[in-house]
Amino acid sequence: MKICTTIDEMRAAARAVRRADKRLGFVPTMGALHEGHLSLVRQARASCDVVAASIFVNPTQFGPTEDLAKYPRSFERDRELLEQEGVELLFAPSFEEMYPTAADGPWSELGEESVLSTAADRSVRPTLVTWVTVEELSGKLDGWSRPGHFRGVTTVVAKLFHIVEPDVAFFGQKDAAQLAIIRRMVRDLNLPVEIVSCPIVREPDGLAMSSRNAYLTAEQRPQTLALHRSLMRVNQLVSTGERNASQLAAAGRAEFATATGVHLDYFEIVNPDTLDPVEEISHGALVAVAAYVGKTRLIDNLLLPGSEKSRGM
Amino acid sequence: MKICTTIDEMRAAARAVRRADKRLGFVPTMGALHEGHLSLVRQARASCDVVAASIFVNPTQFGPTEDLAKYPRSFERDRELLEQEGVELLFAPSFEEMYPTAADGPWSELGEESVLSTAADRSVRPTLVTWVTVEELSGKLDGWSRPGHFRGVTTVVAKLFHIVEPDVAFFGQKDAAQLAIIRRMVRDLNLPVEIVSCPIVREPDGLAMSSRNAYLTAEQRPQTLALHRSLMRVNQLVSTGERNASQLAAAGRAEFATATGVHLDYFEIVNPDTLDPVEEISHGALVAVAAYVGKTRLIDNLLLPGSEKSRGM
Repeated sequence: MKICTTIDEMRAAARAVRRADKRLGFVPTMGALHEGHLSLVRQARASCDVVAASIFVNPTQFGPTEDLAKYPRSFERDRELLEQEGVELLFAPSFEEMYPTAADGPWSELGEESVLSTAADRSVRPTLVTWVTVEELSGKLDGWSRPGHFRGVTTVVAKLFHIVEPDVAFFGQKDAAQLAIIRRMVRDLNLPVEIVSCPIVREPDGLAMSSRNAYLTAEQRPQTLALHRSLMRVNQLVSTGERNASQLAAAGRAEFATATGVHLDYFEIVNPDTLDPVEEISHGALVAVAAYVGKTRLIDNLLLPGSEKSRGM
Repeated sequence: MKICTTIDEMRAAARAVRRADKRLGFVPTMGALHEGHLSLVRQARASCDVVAASIFVNPTQFGPTEDLAKYPRSFERDRELLEQEGVELLFAPSFEEMYPTAADGPWSELGEESVLSTAADRSVRPTLVTWVTVEELSGKLDGWSRPGHFRGVTTVVAKLFHIVEPDVAFFGQKDAAQLAIIRRMVRDLNLPVEIVSCPIVREPDGLAMSSRNAYLTAEQRPQTLALHRSLMRVNQLVSTGERNASQLAAAGRAEFATATGVHLDYFEIVNPDTLDPVEEISHGALVAVAAYVGKTRLIDNLLLPGSEKSRGM
């Protein structure tokens, strides 16, 4: 596996793949890899000639009070896992490589506050000037709780797509709002990349895999199951014929009324493409939940199938 | 010359060029071509293996009270000129191809007002959801007079770059603010394209070539020369040793105090990369002017050379 730390190096390696007429798959990550990430790599492996992955903890998608500083980092282990899964190209840039500091260009007047520390754990936010924003969708679901989050995601994903130029990129269904927003960005901006989503990977008891699960204490661990339980409750009601989204959401939220140690952020039933609330679920819907267990924010969701026509993509 | 009206067709044609390891140059235009555009094509011709051009009057860069409806259109003449200059690929999409209507996707709830008319002269603005914005620069110079203009420009240029995937793209120095903003977008988003600027092409009397010159009446035509005169006045003062930007700008603006039929929009001396005002011009500067002659808004500028170091790019 070739490890590229500079943009020029990564671009050259990826272009060599394309020049050889090989299909390049890309799995962008923030590291701290788990089985969910590896399922994306395996899906890429199965459908592409060459697989590239990236590890970059993107500061612009963290809010000022969020967990950028303590976000789990395990580069050596991640590197080994990716190599074992047959990844050929790993892009692992520094913060400065992705967000050049003011001193690095003709924009030195932007001032000291824009200069990122070399220490990856300093929560100094770079002064980025160009942003890619999916306006209608970025304020919904997690975007409502995390202002600016999705703008940071779409901007860094656009950057990564421009550097790696993959034929196809793989994202987890767990981040359902992120997936909808990236799909919309790709469509609106005509980005020449196909987006493939992969199913949520869960622990045996139902907890969706997440790098943030590493924050959980032994006491908190069972408390997290309220998220999965709420989705299972909705699924059960759907299987018995309930179609009214308000009724279903109320039942899902009720699971949190009786749960201890868990603070519900949102429980919504929405159109999986627009993230707008739906009234009834006959045409398919996304049941999405976010909750805090202690200070750890967890998300999970359930995609209720609709007819192909209603999904539209 | 192959004319592509769909995105798929254009992308396939451009990819075939790249697959043959040929250098692809791209000249994006809004049509109504003049010698300025043709100088870009010739520059592309001289430095690339294959030249692509586009003709698209982009509605998202026109304000609600601007001249989208009456913007000059001369497709047949433009097509002939491009063919004569050796352009191999012409991308000429419809409004709907570039900004799919709500009815075309799973976003039908966006409503009727988002649907662009097939008539190119209807000034209905599309509801675009994803925008590329160069925030610090887009409100300066023309962006101050034309709110939203540069957001429309950067978004459509990003789309065109994603469709054509050129190695190098050519822009006129006449639109100096646009050029600075596109350069910054390319840098910040790591777009894999080189930006080349070409000098302003002028009529014999000094008027900068512009598609909007077609709006001018015989009476207005000589009135436009105030713009060029104001720049020449600054240039003369610089050649005699003046370095103070306030003094220089005052002298430039003074030309408009005595001119008839011309209404000054702005006359600024700025850093050509950041578009911020400069105090003295020793390190190079952009002298930029915009003025209305009747209802026609014209722009012009003069790039004062600095040391290579100070330019930084």
